Amino acid sequence: MSIGTDISFFFSPKSIAIVGASPIPEKPSHVILGSLKRIGFKGAIYLVNPKYSYINGCKCYRSIAEIKDDIDVAIFALPAPRVIECLKPVENVRGAIIVSAGFKEMGDAGRRLEEELKEIVERKGIRIIGPNCLGIYDTVSRIDTFFIPVDRMKRLKRGGLSILTQSGSFAEMIVDEMASEGIGVARIVSYGNRVDVGETDCLNFLMDDEATKVIVLYIESVDDGRRFVDVASRCTKKKPVVAVKVGKREAGVHAARSHTGAICGRYEIYRAAFKKAGIIEVDGYEGLKDACKVLNTYGLVEGKKVLIVTDGGGVGISIADTCEDLGLEVTGLTEETRKRLSSKLPGFSATGNPIDLTGSVTDEDYVIALEAGLREEYDIVIVAVLWGPPEITERLVDKLKEVRDTYNKPMIVCSPGGEFTRRMAKHFEEKGMPVFYTPESAARAAAVLAGGKR
Amino acid sequence: MSIGTDISFFFSPKSIAIVGASPIPEKPSHVILGSLKRIGFKGAIYLVNPKYSYINGCKCYRSIAEIKDDIDVAIFALPAPRVIECLKPVENVRGAIIVSAGFKEMGDAGRRLEEELKEIVERKGIRIIGPNCLGIYDTVSRIDTFFIPVDRMKRLKRGGLSILTQSGSFAEMIVDEMASEGIGVARIVSYGNRVDVGETDCLNFLMDDEATKVIVLYIESVDDGRRFVDVASRCTKKKPVVAVKVGKREAGVHAARSHTGAICGRYEIYRAAFKKAGIIEVDGYEGLKDACKVLNTYGLVEGKKVLIVTDGGGVGISIADTCEDLGLEVTGLTEETRKRLSSKLPGFSATGNPIDLTGSVTDEDYVIALEAGLREEYDIVIVAVLWGPPEITERLVDKLKEVRDTYNKPMIVCSPGGEFTRRMAKHFEEKGMPVFYTPESAARAAAVLAGGKR
Repeated sequence: MSIGTDISFFFSPKSIAIVGASPIPEKPSHVILGSLKRIGFKGAIYLVNPKYSYINGCKCYRSIAEIKDDIDVAIFALPAPRVIECLKPVENVRGAIIVSAGFKEMGDAGRRLEEELKEIVERKGIRIIGPNCLGIYDTVSRIDTFFIPVDRMKRLKRGGLSILTQSGSFAEMIVDEMASEGIGVARIVSYGNRVDVGETDCLNFLMDDEATKVIVLYIESVDDGRRFVDVASRCTKKKPVVAVKVGKREAGVHAARSHTGAICGRYEIYRAAFKKAGIIEVDGYEGLKDACKVLNTYGLVEGKKVLIVTDGGGVGISIADTCEDLGLEVTGLTEETRKRLSSKLPGFSATGNPIDLTGSVTDEDYVIALEAGLREEYDIVIVAVLWGPPEITERLVDKLKEVRDTYNKPMIVCSPGGEFTRRMAKHFEEKGMPVFYTPESAARAAAVLAGGKR
Repeated sequence: MSIGTDISFFFSPKSIAIVGASPIPEKPSHVILGSLKRIGFKGAIYLVNPKYSYINGCKCYRSIAEIKDDIDVAIFALPAPRVIECLKPVENVRGAIIVSAGFKEMGDAGRRLEEELKEIVERKGIRIIGPNCLGIYDTVSRIDTFFIPVDRMKRLKRGGLSILTQSGSFAEMIVDEMASEGIGVARIVSYGNRVDVGETDCLNFLMDDEATKVIVLYIESVDDGRRFVDVASRCTKKKPVVAVKVGKREAGVHAARSHTGAICGRYEIYRAAFKKAGIIEVDGYEGLKDACKVLNTYGLVEGKKVLIVTDGGGVGISIADTCEDLGLEVTGLTEETRKRLSSKLPGFSATGNPIDLTGSVTDEDYVIALEAGLREEYDIVIVAVLWGPPEITERLVDKLKEVRDTYNKPMIVCSPGGEFTRRMAKHFEEKGMPVFYTPESAARAAAVLAGGKR
């Protein structure tokens, strides 16, 4: 579908036009205007709507043609048939983001509109993101076309993750949750029906994008399997790529068709393609969330040996179970280390893997256990902290951070619980220590760092 | 191991003794005294410690023997060897809760202490909960021996769930989380090393306990497989029983041994036993949490047909995928219903299953979709609510509740997101509508209601 390969102008536009601009606060186009200002877009913003001369004191053009400037990105927030009408006479637009629904996902009438759209833009050489999407959220070039008001969906600070998604709702969910947890992103592209620009074009751009350290994909389908595997294979040599495949089963496959018009194909084919391309596959929204959180802080590791340190037996066992389910190795400590630990830790402690410090634990016991364990050949450590034991204190946060920074191994904190626990989790996160709230999610995060489920 | 079968006095004691009582706030015994007062235990509380004459103005006895009353439950919060010393001369105690660690889980020396403990209590006919446990949290008879201060672990209000667990840390995690979400319980027993009273005795009691509507089990091992299956089989005829088996894999099995001294046995044997007994098996802490949450509100259903209504395509597809993975049926609507829906819903909507109301959704669209869908033969409905779409409002909470109450089908709300979403979730929960924060957890909850994974 792609006309050229360069889509980088979408991520560094000098001029943006909002087509269908409106002074009505609830309108998506109005939300987008506000968002572009809030995020601090530095280029020119042109408003287009024949109904208005001015919107909020800014000049409003009757048509795109009336603007005496080249438009890098025109954002269309109009009913589907109007999008076509507005695009037909256009000569000065490089790329369009069409957030409007009402195309291929809508059956025959919509499919015809989408065919027409495709024909127009191919003829004119305009690149398209969408339709039926949220568009771009970009903390680097400061673009935000996500038309959900900020009181309903918080915005993310800058970070190294970039996310590509067919589903707008996935983007909405993960953006809102990650923002609440203080995680940052570089660029997010929600491309919906993917009439033109899709995952492969974006991957191709992000591969060499310095702002992007990790790429996360939500996939219902890919448009060109061979090209996808080719580009993804090159991409995974440069930075980690994580993917979730949605629409695996019958009902999901069917729903995906009416969602973004995607033909899902057999899940097994996707699994094989991911594997071939070196993509780390995760399961569902939970897997994607865990991956985003852990890769926001840590890079991939070479091996798959996990050390577990806990102050609760049951949570330690659960982490160990899940780690082994996911193909990680929970190997025991050497006899020498066990002896050293037994001499330093209180008698209740169990010096296996997990190292169980029990409810008698002190802050210092965690340090002793970790310093002994991390001298061995572990790749990742999961530290379970239940805050019930009376002798552990807030100082534990700094102590764990110090150990992590000294030994330079990814440390995943697992801390299930309620209000007190969540308050402590904020402290961990302020120090750059990601916290996971279930034994299973901590293990899933470790599996991502080890390159995914085996 | 059981001496008699009646353990009901643990759940309706007239007198409690705290052995090892202390005026020092950090001591477990002091926390327990405070907890018994806070929860409003109505019987007599006796304090025992030869070091003190009075603690906080209350008389303190030198020994249990000095108390001129029969003690229904004596709580021991003392070092393991001292527990044995104190129990030896005792004649007026029916049951003991020994929270102290330092027994079987501690290797040879501890194992000898535990043997001694067992011998003493068998001779005297005293029933034991523990050692190495949190004991009992009971909102019916108002007992709380969980020795974790309330600022670190919130307490639960009264409800119909009863939880039996070998692991104290699982109890801690789930209590704290459920309390934060406003879920209630009847009785929780953390029995740790299970020198005497275990899951089967407790099941036997809870089977006919009117306060208990649902039983949830955390199991590392069972003590007597045949008796367990026998009692559980009778129990599941009267009320739902849910279980999680922990210590499935090598590292977990090994850790369980040093945790509660449990010999786990092969996981496959447990699976078969659960199935035979009609127990609903769930996976890990996440599965257990979902089960507690959904069974706090809804009962089991006969069939396994799920209707999904969503305002986000991607989240709907994910729910459908997970439902089918778990053996639920996501069957389509009848042609008649589809036609009715198409005529009433805006054109963007997809009238499959999921019914996708898209970002153009209004509060009323949810009602239309649900009223049409619920006339068909679905057993459970999952309603995904993403709060991004501008036209849905807080009033949706009441509208959904009204539909649920009218059609009398379990309605599981799935609402992933950040701060706004969590605020709305509180409203749902105040109305008795459980909210799940990932597509996967909503589907897992539905699978529990349908009797577990197929």
